[in-house]
Amino acid sequence: MTIEETSAFTPRFNEAGLLPVVAQEAGTGRVLMVAWANREAIDLTLKKGEAHYWSRSRSEMWHKGATSGNVQKVVRVLTDCDQDTLIYEVEQQGPACHTGRETCFYREVTAEGLSAAT
Amino acid sequence: MTIEETSAFTPRFNEAGLLPVVAQEAGTGRVLMVAWANREAIDLTLKKGEAHYWSRSRSEMWHKGATSGNVQKVVRVLTDCDQDTLIYEVEQQGPACHTGRETCFYREVTAEGLSAAT
Repeated sequence: MTIEETSAFTPRFNEAGLLPVVAQEAGTGRVLMVAWANREAIDLTLKKGEAHYWSRSRSEMWHKGATSGNVQKVVRVLTDCDQDTLIYEVEQQGPACHTGRETCFYREVTAEGLSAAT
Repeated sequence: MTIEETSAFTPRFNEAGLLPVVAQEAGTGRVLMVAWANREAIDLTLKKGEAHYWSRSRSEMWHKGATSGNVQKVVRVLTDCDQDTLIYEVEQQGPACHTGRETCFYREVTAEGLSAAT
């Protein structure tokens, strides 16, 4: 059984033991942020039902919202075909972005630079 | 002006000169795939209006759909707060996934393994 068709979860991490995770808002489909997870972060997310990531800047487990209260209740976790990327489908409490905005994707890229996404 | 507030596009690539790109279907918000782009792929995407990525497996520029016809017409490009991830908002022609499925995210991850996402 190929990695695309198997029912075994065998995530393919990068050389740092991480894979990217897209946090997507349940219901709206809005992409809130992209972060990274290692095996332990995925296991904690599945077990606790709240999003866990690996903070690359702090080199530590990151239970999002543990201090701010802006937790992400995980509705489901999806994997892509070759199992090197996940989606956390979440119900976001408060803003997802550290700037205080609801989503991290608040700017559009054009040939002229960045502008506010409408 | 911080990287979060500037109107200058100064993408932060990883050590391989790449950043992750979420391809999201315009209108539905469905996440179709996650791939990687270098500076040239981003520039080509903005210039041509069709999604370009860097193929890590083939180590070459990847104009998605150039051979299969399954191109992604790019409606807009968004960046996240710290400019290390992009969203290509696209109109997908044909299936996005190399397995022939509409999206690469067709399986749910649970503690028991993978099952078809409904």
